[in-house]
Amino acid sequence: MPDAPIADFHAVVPAGGAGTRLWPLSRAGHPKFLLDLTGSGRTLLQGTVDRLLPLTGPGRVLVVTGARHAEAVAQQLPALGPEHVLAEPSPRDSMAAIGLAAAVLAQRHGPDVVLGSFAADHVITGLPEFGETIREAVAAARTGEVVTIGIRATEPSTAFGYVRGGAPLGAPGAPHARRAVGFTEKPDAATAAAYLATGEYSWNAGMFVVRAGVLLDHLAAQLPTLHDGLRRIAAAWDTPERDARLADTWPGLTRIAIDHAIAEPVAAAGGVAVVPGTFGWDDIGDFASLGTLLEGTGGGSATLGDADLVLRVDADGAVVVTGGRTVSVVGLPDAVVVDTADALLVTTRAHAQQVKQAVDGWRGRGRDDLL
Amino acid sequence: MPDAPIADFHAVVPAGGAGTRLWPLSRAGHPKFLLDLTGSGRTLLQGTVDRLLPLTGPGRVLVVTGARHAEAVAQQLPALGPEHVLAEPSPRDSMAAIGLAAAVLAQRHGPDVVLGSFAADHVITGLPEFGETIREAVAAARTGEVVTIGIRATEPSTAFGYVRGGAPLGAPGAPHARRAVGFTEKPDAATAAAYLATGEYSWNAGMFVVRAGVLLDHLAAQLPTLHDGLRRIAAAWDTPERDARLADTWPGLTRIAIDHAIAEPVAAAGGVAVVPGTFGWDDIGDFASLGTLLEGTGGGSATLGDADLVLRVDADGAVVVTGGRTVSVVGLPDAVVVDTADALLVTTRAHAQQVKQAVDGWRGRGRDDLL
Repeated sequence: MPDAPIADFHAVVPAGGAGTRLWPLSRAGHPKFLLDLTGSGRTLLQGTVDRLLPLTGPGRVLVVTGARHAEAVAQQLPALGPEHVLAEPSPRDSMAAIGLAAAVLAQRHGPDVVLGSFAADHVITGLPEFGETIREAVAAARTGEVVTIGIRATEPSTAFGYVRGGAPLGAPGAPHARRAVGFTEKPDAATAAAYLATGEYSWNAGMFVVRAGVLLDHLAAQLPTLHDGLRRIAAAWDTPERDARLADTWPGLTRIAIDHAIAEPVAAAGGVAVVPGTFGWDDIGDFASLGTLLEGTGGGSATLGDADLVLRVDADGAVVVTGGRTVSVVGLPDAVVVDTADALLVTTRAHAQQVKQAVDGWRGRGRDDLL
Repeated sequence: MPDAPIADFHAVVPAGGAGTRLWPLSRAGHPKFLLDLTGSGRTLLQGTVDRLLPLTGPGRVLVVTGARHAEAVAQQLPALGPEHVLAEPSPRDSMAAIGLAAAVLAQRHGPDVVLGSFAADHVITGLPEFGETIREAVAAARTGEVVTIGIRATEPSTAFGYVRGGAPLGAPGAPHARRAVGFTEKPDAATAAAYLATGEYSWNAGMFVVRAGVLLDHLAAQLPTLHDGLRRIAAAWDTPERDARLADTWPGLTRIAIDHAIAEPVAAAGGVAVVPGTFGWDDIGDFASLGTLLEGTGGGSATLGDADLVLRVDADGAVVVTGGRTVSVVGLPDAVVVDTADALLVTTRAHAQQVKQAVDGWRGRGRDDLL
C-alpha cells in the first residue's frame, strides 16, 4: 500500500533558525518557518507537517522548537497536541534538538521506531516522489543505517553541503540507496563544479532517517555526555520532573550540529547511506531563491502578497513582498523590495546574501526591535 | 541701500504643477511646492516667499494658485493675508496666472509697478547674488523691457529651455542686462552642447520681471481676448463681483504658457532683455536632481527625512526619502527609495525621468487615490 502510513515511522521537525537573509520578512520573534513564503495559505511549518502526516499517520510528528516559539507553533498546528511540541529552553543546535526527539521517541515507543528529521522551513514539490524517497530511506534505516537524503544538485551551488554516494547498499525495499562515502561542507565554486561533473555528489539537505536507538547509540559513542543528558531529560519528559531536568541539564548540553556529531564520523566508519531525492526541494535561503520560487508558482511574477499592490515599469523580474501599501518599481528588474510595517528593505537578487549585513547594521545601532 | 526693498516692486508666485516626477512624495493634492524638499524646515513655497519679501517689502508678494490649494497656501503663509492669495477656479496655464496677477496689481497700484514672477517650487542659493540680479532686472524692466533671468548653464541639459543673450542693453542700473535674441525650448543634447560652447546661452528658468502695464499691453497685442478677460476679472477682484466674473469669464480663458504668449513673440520683436543670474538654482525636476541637492546640503548623504531611519550597505549614493519606517538599502548605490504611507517607490537616479510612467500606470489601474 504505497499510500498508507509507514509502520513505526515518526517525523521530527526541528523548527529553529532566524532566517536572517530573509529579514525583514523573517524576524527573530517571527522566523521563517512561521511564514507563508509561497502564497499557498500555509506556512512553511504547516506545509512541512502537511506532507509528513500521510507518511507517519496521525500523532507521529514531533516539532522541536525554542520555548519562545512554542505557542506560535501550537497555534499553527492545533491538531498536533501539546505532547508533540518539544520546547527547548535555549538553542543548543541541531544535535540536541534531534537527539532530544530521538530520546523521547525511544522512551515512548522503544528504540526500534524509525525517525526522519526534516527542517521546518524548506519547500518541497513532487509529493509522490517525496513519499517514495522517504519509504526507501526508512527501509534502509531499518537495517541499522543512518540514512541521509541526497538532493539532486541542479547547479554547482556554494550554499549547500554535499554528500557523495558510493556502492549500492542492497537493502531490501531501498533499491536506490547507496553507501555514503562522505560529506563536504559548502565548497568553493570550482570544487562544486567538479562534484557535479562526477555525478556522484548530491546536496545534503539535512534530512536524516534513522532508528531512534541507532541514533542514540552513535551519539553515546561519539558524545556520551550529551547522550546521557538527553536521555535523562527524555526519561522525565512525560513526568512532573520535566522542568526540573530541563533546568538542571539542558543548559550544559554541547552545542553541535548533527552533521558534525553523527553524519561525518559515522560516514567515515561506513554507517551512513544516501537515498537520492527525486522531488523538488528549495531551502529558500535568501530573496533570490524566494524570487525564483515565486516565479515558478506565481505565473512568472515574483510577488509575495497582493499582486494588485505592485506596479513594475521596466522591472518585470523584481521580487516584491507587499506589506499593505502599493509598491512601484521603475527600471530595476533585479530589485528585491520587502515592505513590512517597521522595516523596508531594498536590494537586488545579486546582493541577496548581503542582507545579513543590514541586520548586523541595525544591531550595531541598537535597534534590536527590528531584528 | 542695497538691502532695502525695491521701490514699487511686487513679486508674483505662480504655485501650480503636480511635480509628477517626484511622485509619490509630490501628489496632485499635495504638490511639490507645498513640500520641504531640502530638509530646511520650510517648504519650497515658503522658501520662495522668504527670499522675495526682503526685495519687495511686506505686503507685496502675490501667490497665484489653484482653488484646491488656496487653503494650504494660506496655512503655510499666514502673514500673507487673503488679498495676496489669488485662487484660480481651474488651471489655465502660466499666462492666465501671471496675467491675472499683473491685472490685479495694475488695478490696485497702477500700471507702472514692476512685477517679478518666480516659480513656487525652485530652490535658490546665494541670496545676495539673487537680490543683485533682481535689482538689475527691475532696473531694466523700468525702461519698458520684458526681462528674463538667464541661469548660468552648468551642463548641456536637455531638460531646460535656453535663452540667447545679444548686445548689452545699456539700461541704467542694469550693467549686465543684454538684449534677448531668442528662446529655444528643450533642445537635444548636441544642440545643448553647441549652445554652451558659444557662451551666449543660458537656461530660461521662467523668471520674468516686467512693468504690469507693459505685460498687459503685450498681452493685449498678442492675445486680446485673454487680456480683456483678465482685465474684466481683475476689475472685479476686490469687489463683491469677483466670484461672478470668475464664473462667467475664467472658464473661457486661453490656456497658454507665458513663454509662448509673450516671451517668444516679444523677443522676436526686440522687446525682451536677459539679466544673467549668478545665484545657485535648481528646479528639483526629479529624484536624481533631489539626490544631488540633498548631497550638497546633507553632508554627502542623500537622505530626506530622518537619517537615523536609513541604513546603507554598499549603497552610499542611494537617495532615500523616509516616511517613518526604517529603510535598508543593500548593494544599490544608484537607488532611489521613497517611502510614504500608501505608496512606496523604488527606482534609480538613472531612471528618475521614468517615474511618471508609474503615475500613469496607477492611473491606468484606476488608483487615482494615489496620484
